[in-house]
Amino acid sequence: MSDIFDELKFDANGLVPAIAQEQKTGEVLMLAWMNREAVAETLATGQVCYFSRSRNKLWRKCESSGQRQKLVDFRYDCDGDTVLLLVEQTGVACHTGRRSCFFTAIRDGQAVEIAAPLISPEELYGEPKM
Amino acid sequence: MSDIFDELKFDANGLVPAIAQEQKTGEVLMLAWMNREAVAETLATGQVCYFSRSRNKLWRKCESSGQRQKLVDFRYDCDGDTVLLLVEQTGVACHTGRRSCFFTAIRDGQAVEIAAPLISPEELYGEPKM
Repeated sequence: MSDIFDELKFDANGLVPAIAQEQKTGEVLMLAWMNREAVAETLATGQVCYFSRSRNKLWRKCESSGQRQKLVDFRYDCDGDTVLLLVEQTGVACHTGRRSCFFTAIRDGQAVEIAAPLISPEELYGEPKM
Repeated sequence: MSDIFDELKFDANGLVPAIAQEQKTGEVLMLAWMNREAVAETLATGQVCYFSRSRNKLWRKCESSGQRQKLVDFRYDCDGDTVLLLVEQTGVACHTGRRSCFFTAIRDGQAVEIAAPLISPEELYGEPKM
């Protein structure tokens, strides 16, 4: 595993941005951040683990919502400063209950919602699931 | 245009990460950064403009390589801290001559190149094109 840590360039906070893309559809689901520990855990377990900047700790997608991301392929870019995770997303990726976090578009100069929630946040976070 | 600048959350350096995705294929091409000026120019012209952190100035994809990105849809995420650009990429997105910057994958614990250059960097940058 030393390989990957020679290649990845973490920023001053020890983080690298990670894009999650649904492998089956190509849909970009979200962008979050990983530290070395999150990268190591993701590669070791095959379940995606991020680092939460707001909570300042590891963030396993399944912990609070049951919305697991199974790793299909771990890629990084030519500069080694961004990760691309191809995943199989269980349920929705977004905390608002939408499949993707990118549900707002600028059309004719106005912000427009282009996707509706598939599940309510209450239902998503009501009962902690593992 | 005041709308978008109320919604987007730029970081301490005045930047927001922007993912470029090829609209036709769904391929994630690259991640770069935008400041307010780059966002405004991209929306005004329909040609993608980033902010280069290494050169500390606006970075129009076509300037040094002719590899233009035409904006198809401008989206941002639920937190307003990441942009997703759906684009039509002319030629390749990566400075190595590959279509996407994400051409390295970790497979069986080893870094593997999964895409070959379509054009040499010399050919790409040999003669400045507009």
